Amino acid sequence: MSENHDILLAVYRVIQERKKASPDASYTSSLFHKGIDSILKKVGEEAAEVIIAGKGGEKEKVIYETADLLFHTLVLLAYQDISPEEIYIELRRRFGTSGITEKQSREKKPVEKS
Amino acid sequence: MSENHDILLAVYRVIQERKKASPDASYTSSLFHKGIDSILKKVGEEAAEVIIAGKGGEKEKVIYETADLLFHTLVLLAYQDISPEEIYIELRRRFGTSGITEKQSREKKPVEKS
Amino acid sequence: MSENHDILLAVYRVIQERKKASPDASYTSSLFHKGIDSILKKVGEEAAEVIIAGKGGEKEKVIYETADLLFHTLVLLAYQDISPEEIYIELRRRFGTSGITEKQSREKKPVEKS
Amino acid sequence: MSENHDILLAVYRVIQERKKASPDASYTSSLFHKGIDSILKKVGEEAAEVIIAGKGGEKEKVIYETADLLFHTLVLLAYQDISPEEIYIELRRRFGTSGITEKQSREKKPVEKS
Repeated sequence: MSENHDILLAVYRVIQERKKASPDASYTSSLFHKGIDSILKKVGEEAAEVIIAGKGGEKEKVIYETADLLFHTLVLLAYQDISPEEIYIELRRRFGTSGITEKQSREKKPVEKS
Repeated sequence: MSENHDILLAVYRVIQERKKASPDASYTSSLFHKGIDSILKKVGEEAAEVIIAGKGGEKEKVIYETADLLFHTLVLLAYQDISPEEIYIELRRRFGTSGITEKQSREKKPVEKS
Repeated sequence: MSENHDILLAVYRVIQERKKASPDASYTSSLFHKGIDSILKKVGEEAAEVIIAGKGGEKEKVIYETADLLFHTLVLLAYQDISPEEIYIELRRRFGTSGITEKQSREKKPVEKS
Repeated sequence: MSENHDILLAVYRVIQERKKASPDASYTSSLFHKGIDSILKKVGEEAAEVIIAGKGGEKEKVIYETADLLFHTLVLLAYQDISPEEIYIELRRRFGTSGITEKQSREKKPVEKS
């Protein structure tokens, strides 16, 4: 996937830059400085907002809050030096390299584990 | 972004197919049939697992649970007929079309709203 | 249960008073004024903090965050005019009036529903 | 607080008994056996259900899901050998021993920390 085209990867690179900056350089830099608990708290908070928006059924809010959730998930990945590519590999593993054939193993798994 | 390259978009298309299938065709189809509350519950559950994995610090678990969270977020989007492209547009709006310049507005906003 | 002895009920009464006050009277009053989404967001946020503290294994943090979660859950109940007594009735129904005999129905249910 | 009157304390005692039992004795025993991650996941899941019910505005569902959240929070406390009394002490510290006077410190704190 070309970096010019993948917005998640592009945002991730911005976040990586912010990670190196001083805490007062930006909201993202400050979040890294506060540490893992603050980042995880934000992931939980944004997930709650996605749920609230989803239940409310307002499309614009769902888009806004999902963007927030993705952003903070990328911050978590950057904190732990995990590239979004590693998530893509996991998704490709589950759904097949073509992205067209969903593996049966995936389809059955979540039922068993939950 | 070409659909051949964007795994999230490819997974989203698979999910859209599953949405039309009978409830017993797959885990995803069954989730659509159960309705919005079940989908939102899964988003909350997977976010909790990302938080647990993130706090535990095990990289493999973070990758696995983040893939799960992304998958169920895509199910929510499909349920509400929102394309991942709409999330990308929102992220581009915040971070600039080049994906390089993070807008100041984004940087300050979350502090105010939380 | 006597109101003098039940701290949750006592806190609930304080919250009910705050509900009637002006938004700038207190944090609680302001939360009621912001509305249901803000209250639910706080429930999600505090649950995330309980999870983080629980995974971290620090007893003092678990106590602190659990108190926060209970407090915000009571705010939600007050918002929807639900008395804590109604939750106690539900718990007594599940666990028997003596509180000693756990009903089989309770024991099996969560496995099936999750 | 007399144990005869406090349903949370009564449920907590039942949970403590289940903690010592074999994994297949009950849902609660099985949860302890699965360990801290499974317990925390349930706390997250139940919090999500409280949020969904709260946003839906159905009183009966809020009562049911809040009972579920309290139950699983008590399981977490039992897992970490924390008595509900320790949460009560924290709440009394914040709200005054009479439970009538809400301390200013409490009122201002959450705004700063969130």
